[in-house]
Amino acid sequence: MLFENASIEAIRNCRTEWPLVWIDCVGLGNVDLIRELGTIFGLHPLALEDTINTSQRPKADFYDDHAYVVVRMIDDTASQRWEQISVFFGDNFVLTFQERAGDPFAPVHKRIQAPLPNRLRTRKADYLAYALIDAIVDSYFVPIETIGDAIDRIEDEMLAAPRKTHLRDLHRLRREVVALKRALWPLRDALAALTRADTPYVHRETAVYFNDTLDHSVRLIDTVDTDRELLTELLDTYNSLSQARVSEVISILTIVSAIFIPLTFLVGVWGMNFDTEVSPWNMPELEWRYGYPAALGFMLFVALSLLGYFKWRKWL
Amino acid sequence: MLFENASIEAIRNCRTEWPLVWIDCVGLGNVDLIRELGTIFGLHPLALEDTINTSQRPKADFYDDHAYVVVRMIDDTASQRWEQISVFFGDNFVLTFQERAGDPFAPVHKRIQAPLPNRLRTRKADYLAYALIDAIVDSYFVPIETIGDAIDRIEDEMLAAPRKTHLRDLHRLRREVVALKRALWPLRDALAALTRADTPYVHRETAVYFNDTLDHSVRLIDTVDTDRELLTELLDTYNSLSQARVSEVISILTIVSAIFIPLTFLVGVWGMNFDTEVSPWNMPELEWRYGYPAALGFMLFVALSLLGYFKWRKWL
Amino acid sequence: MLFENASIEAIRNCRTEWPLVWIDCVGLGNVDLIRELGTIFGLHPLALEDTINTSQRPKADFYDDHAYVVVRMIDDTASQRWEQISVFFGDNFVLTFQERAGDPFAPVHKRIQAPLPNRLRTRKADYLAYALIDAIVDSYFVPIETIGDAIDRIEDEMLAAPRKTHLRDLHRLRREVVALKRALWPLRDALAALTRADTPYVHRETAVYFNDTLDHSVRLIDTVDTDRELLTELLDTYNSLSQARVSEVISILTIVSAIFIPLTFLVGVWGMNFDTEVSPWNMPELEWRYGYPAALGFMLFVALSLLGYFKWRKWL
Amino acid sequence: MLFENASIEAIRNCRTEWPLVWIDCVGLGNVDLIRELGTIFGLHPLALEDTINTSQRPKADFYDDHAYVVVRMIDDTASQRWEQISVFFGDNFVLTFQERAGDPFAPVHKRIQAPLPNRLRTRKADYLAYALIDAIVDSYFVPIETIGDAIDRIEDEMLAAPRKTHLRDLHRLRREVVALKRALWPLRDALAALTRADTPYVHRETAVYFNDTLDHSVRLIDTVDTDRELLTELLDTYNSLSQARVSEVISILTIVSAIFIPLTFLVGVWGMNFDTEVSPWNMPELEWRYGYPAALGFMLFVALSLLGYFKWRKWL
Amino acid sequence: MLFENASIEAIRNCRTEWPLVWIDCVGLGNVDLIRELGTIFGLHPLALEDTINTSQRPKADFYDDHAYVVVRMIDDTASQRWEQISVFFGDNFVLTFQERAGDPFAPVHKRIQAPLPNRLRTRKADYLAYALIDAIVDSYFVPIETIGDAIDRIEDEMLAAPRKTHLRDLHRLRREVVALKRALWPLRDALAALTRADTPYVHRETAVYFNDTLDHSVRLIDTVDTDRELLTELLDTYNSLSQARVSEVISILTIVSAIFIPLTFLVGVWGMNFDTEVSPWNMPELEWRYGYPAALGFMLFVALSLLGYFKWRKWL
Repeated sequence: MLFENASIEAIRNCRTEWPLVWIDCVGLGNVDLIRELGTIFGLHPLALEDTINTSQRPKADFYDDHAYVVVRMIDDTASQRWEQISVFFGDNFVLTFQERAGDPFAPVHKRIQAPLPNRLRTRKADYLAYALIDAIVDSYFVPIETIGDAIDRIEDEMLAAPRKTHLRDLHRLRREVVALKRALWPLRDALAALTRADTPYVHRETAVYFNDTLDHSVRLIDTVDTDRELLTELLDTYNSLSQARVSEVISILTIVSAIFIPLTFLVGVWGMNFDTEVSPWNMPELEWRYGYPAALGFMLFVALSLLGYFKWRKWL
Repeated sequence: MLFENASIEAIRNCRTEWPLVWIDCVGLGNVDLIRELGTIFGLHPLALEDTINTSQRPKADFYDDHAYVVVRMIDDTASQRWEQISVFFGDNFVLTFQERAGDPFAPVHKRIQAPLPNRLRTRKADYLAYALIDAIVDSYFVPIETIGDAIDRIEDEMLAAPRKTHLRDLHRLRREVVALKRALWPLRDALAALTRADTPYVHRETAVYFNDTLDHSVRLIDTVDTDRELLTELLDTYNSLSQARVSEVISILTIVSAIFIPLTFLVGVWGMNFDTEVSPWNMPELEWRYGYPAALGFMLFVALSLLGYFKWRKWL
Repeated sequence: MLFENASIEAIRNCRTEWPLVWIDCVGLGNVDLIRELGTIFGLHPLALEDTINTSQRPKADFYDDHAYVVVRMIDDTASQRWEQISVFFGDNFVLTFQERAGDPFAPVHKRIQAPLPNRLRTRKADYLAYALIDAIVDSYFVPIETIGDAIDRIEDEMLAAPRKTHLRDLHRLRREVVALKRALWPLRDALAALTRADTPYVHRETAVYFNDTLDHSVRLIDTVDTDRELLTELLDTYNSLSQARVSEVISILTIVSAIFIPLTFLVGVWGMNFDTEVSPWNMPELEWRYGYPAALGFMLFVALSLLGYFKWRKWL
Repeated sequence: MLFENASIEAIRNCRTEWPLVWIDCVGLGNVDLIRELGTIFGLHPLALEDTINTSQRPKADFYDDHAYVVVRMIDDTASQRWEQISVFFGDNFVLTFQERAGDPFAPVHKRIQAPLPNRLRTRKADYLAYALIDAIVDSYFVPIETIGDAIDRIEDEMLAAPRKTHLRDLHRLRREVVALKRALWPLRDALAALTRADTPYVHRETAVYFNDTLDHSVRLIDTVDTDRELLTELLDTYNSLSQARVSEVISILTIVSAIFIPLTFLVGVWGMNFDTEVSPWNMPELEWRYGYPAALGFMLFVALSLLGYFKWRKWL
Repeated sequence: MLFENASIEAIRNCRTEWPLVWIDCVGLGNVDLIRELGTIFGLHPLALEDTINTSQRPKADFYDDHAYVVVRMIDDTASQRWEQISVFFGDNFVLTFQERAGDPFAPVHKRIQAPLPNRLRTRKADYLAYALIDAIVDSYFVPIETIGDAIDRIEDEMLAAPRKTHLRDLHRLRREVVALKRALWPLRDALAALTRADTPYVHRETAVYFNDTLDHSVRLIDTVDTDRELLTELLDTYNSLSQARVSEVISILTIVSAIFIPLTFLVGVWGMNFDTEVSPWNMPELEWRYGYPAALGFMLFVALSLLGYFKWRKWL
């Protein structure tokens, strides 16, 4: 049976009437309500505090008659908005606390409403908890693939022609990847703890399912780690490529300067105003019959010699 | 009961009269007093030496009838002033030694004065020790958040326009982060040792609380590690951005030089003083009817050709 | 006996008639067929899902009466096309699922058809599974050697003269190496799990063979890790070499500019049009008898002095 | 009783007469003497070989009736001269072998001569061995603090103005830090082995003292690791700062060049010698009434426009 | 007794006649011979395959009645030629397979021929195997010391004046160090396995000797790791030094250019041909009495102002 906006009273009744109760609480503003739920289901005060304080790292804590699992979910890839989701489960209840509306549990809702035989309705609370946590872990696949695609696109563009915007994109992607890694690493430890859990409310048959989710998280970490390596590698390549470009441009400047600077000096020499009439020592070449063509020819010779020298030194 | 500036005699009496004694000793100058306290509470001489020598790394040592915990507290974020705080606790006493006045234990004082039921007054010395250590660990959150905010601010500014002061800020933040990491890593080990402690004076019920503090320290380390990665990443990005800027500026210099240097050479040629009257071979173009417009036109053509060439080579 | 395109019915019969059945299923499009095979051989549903979803990381899962091994095979080195191959084996059957046609199992086919004594025909399913997995692991050696040769070639060329294409080649090789590493690391863990496996369908005698394959995989990982280190090292060397080149070119530009810029200034001075007739203070040197040779000599002296200074400063 | 230059005979007698004998052998040249000592005290031949060969890494080996501890001591910070010190101890003897004269054991000598109650004289050989090893470990604190001070000084100077000598200093410090790390890491392992040692000649009460020395070594390693990180960080900062400087200088060159190169071209144009008398097309501006002021004004306009453009592009 | 070129028959006889047989087989071309030896001594087929295939990584495999140890030996430091040496040993035999002639076992030969008491002749096969493996491990010391000396030499030269050849030398040394590391890391694991070996043919007394060899290998790895760190550090320093050089050269270029470019513009101005006779507005300064000295003075003033400005900005 599905109730929306159930009263505390209704919940208390459900707890005794139904073999398995799932309460999904959206928004963490109403601290009193959360405390009251804690009292009804006998949740540990430290766990309740962590539920309200939304800067936890993912973890799984096991108390005498219930487990407390914190996971983080990415709400929006672009703005890197994260949400903390707390999952409590005991032998016959599951409590979930979300920070914001939006339904990460949609696939589970659908599976619950499927007709029998339906594992979600015939199994115990730990299987439902698994299904919920699995849905959250699977919600990572889309943003991580988006990042992978962005990396591939930048790589292709960059190898064609490195641009300054690539630098900003690489930087942004690295921030996203660091944030994902930070959410996924402790998640893996929490899932591994659930796999090994030896408590009355986590049954041996469920371990294989938690193990499957653990496998997914390891695959996600793998992808994120590879992405990180690729991003570092791309930044190195960007730097090398743009360095190579600068070095090419500098070489051209050198060639052009090194050829024209001596020539400009020469034309300057023949532009000096020493008085040719005072003595035959003063710039007699200006009055030679073929002075001008000879000067042009000499400058051509100088230019070609320099070009040849540069080619020989492999600078060109 | 709260005494200030209690005499050694009073302390000795308290020890026997009260079920739980907490002595907070500010300043480590009076070595004799510390030794006398050590004798009254049976503290280990090596632990007492470490209390006086304030360059210890955080650790938890367990002796037969008391534990010795050293933690470091950051006094002042800007000047990176650190303080060593030693906590001794046995079955019925807690001793704390601070280097300087200033009260890291203020939240604990408040909690002690709260009316019953008050866990701090009904539980044993290990719970009081937990509350004190927890207060110190929690004092890290503010400086670490300050660093995170500074990183975000620098990132925003830097992506807009990298400046040399960012370099100095990144450097300073990295130093702070290294210092925090150095204080937090061994702290985590010390807290883990307290969680696992199997001694008559650390009770099983307190382990879950120490575990909570351990969780906090792991979260702090996580944040500090992420900050460090971000700082390294930002320095890389700074270098790449400023490199990109230099490369842009160099390109402009090249373009301007490479266009004007040949033109300057040409005007130099026509500024030479070869005597046109000596022979028709000497600079006849100077006496052409349209010599000047033709020269200007030729130079314009050279400039445009070079521009076109640069565009074609994608250097512009 | 070898059947091609066997019907489900034929497979069901084989299962009961022969002591050891190997079914090699090419293409994962026909999900129903795969599910039916799963029912016949009693495969775990989670394992079947992983078979169809081709983005698994290599792993070995052990169920009550069969093992599920996923490995990745490189189809084509140039385009980095990967294929996922799933191997199921129980006490008396082996099932293999390939994504695409092409026969990685050719060496095993040949060994099966060899005359007796033939371990592949006398031993159990685990030995056949070993032979198949070993064939896949051995298929890594060729692409990894190709990469090693490419690295050696680039190294030789680069040390002679670093070129921009080397940068792209190094980048491409690093991507290939990262992809290989990503396939090989989890493969090693899967093989180690098979070596340690303690189940009724993996026999003690086969462990030594799986250990041999594990050795091969460790050798491959070793080579890939060394390749990665060499690639990083080569990129560093490329950057340093091309930096050294730029620095050499810049030095030349400096020398040429620094010598000719003052000389060009000097010829400019003597090209000024101050009126020598107005006063003896205005450019009297233009009317000296040896003005021009003296000017040329002075410029030669300046040029040589500068050259000498540069040599002394070790800039040349 | 203290003997200097004791004869082998005297040592043999001491061995039987006194409950605890400490022999400190300076210089490893006299191999025969060392072998004879080995025979008297029943030392293992492999350990004796390691004593003579002075390139051992720190370690602790445990034989049936004696332990062999090798540590390295830094003799001289500036020249990085290291000395190997071997310590053998059994139930009732301690043997120390130093490479060179100089007394690392001075504090122990002083403590031995202190009046009773004196732990060094009432305890067994293991406590004396601890005191000796502790003295050597403590001798690391001074050189490591010297390095820390040098790092702080370079950091301050460098942030004010990076100089090439800082590079050499950073390089030298990194070498020193690498050498220290290399001596300290295995030392920690050796001390940990002594702490856990379970032999008839290392008593349970001494473990807490060895643990204290282990703590010191961990603190030293911590400091050295932080120093290394700071040095890497400082080199990065040096590179960035000096890169920033170059980039600033290049910008200035660009601005000056980019403004004056077009102006120099213009003055060149008006310095050409086209004959104004041949036709009115040839440089008529030279004969305008306000030609010169107009030209100067035009050049000023060009210069200001360029400056404005550079400001607008934020290059200035 | 020593036989050369012994026949298979002779070996078979030796096997039964002598308590300990050592066969040293040089060259791996004769596969049949190797297989026959394998049959005589009952060697495992997988181990024999690894013996023939010379691209194994060092390892120690233990079979029921013999161990198989693969080590790699460096033949030639300059050309990085490696040789694979396989050592089999059981209770009463040692078999060694070398790729090429050349005698790594020379020290062992000499020790065997030493007169009694001679541990090599009185102990079992495991001690002989230890002596052989120890000889191979010790053969690493010379090439590793050569590398260390080369590093020191390059460091000294480079700090004096960084040259491009240093880059190539550093690159070559890094390749050598990577190759050595790759051979030594698995060797250490193999030796550790031999130390812990618990088989009928490795005796407890030999473990201490294998432990000594393990110590040597750890020392070699230590040295190689330090060398690698130093090489990375030297490359960083090289880059920084050569960057510092370029930055110095660029500064000079800037100063020279920035001073002379404005001066050259000025002399260009006074070299323009505006007609002074047309109007008093056109270049009247050319006809001033002290025009020329004033112009020179003004240019000197400009130059000194710029120099002063650069000094003030600390660019000089």
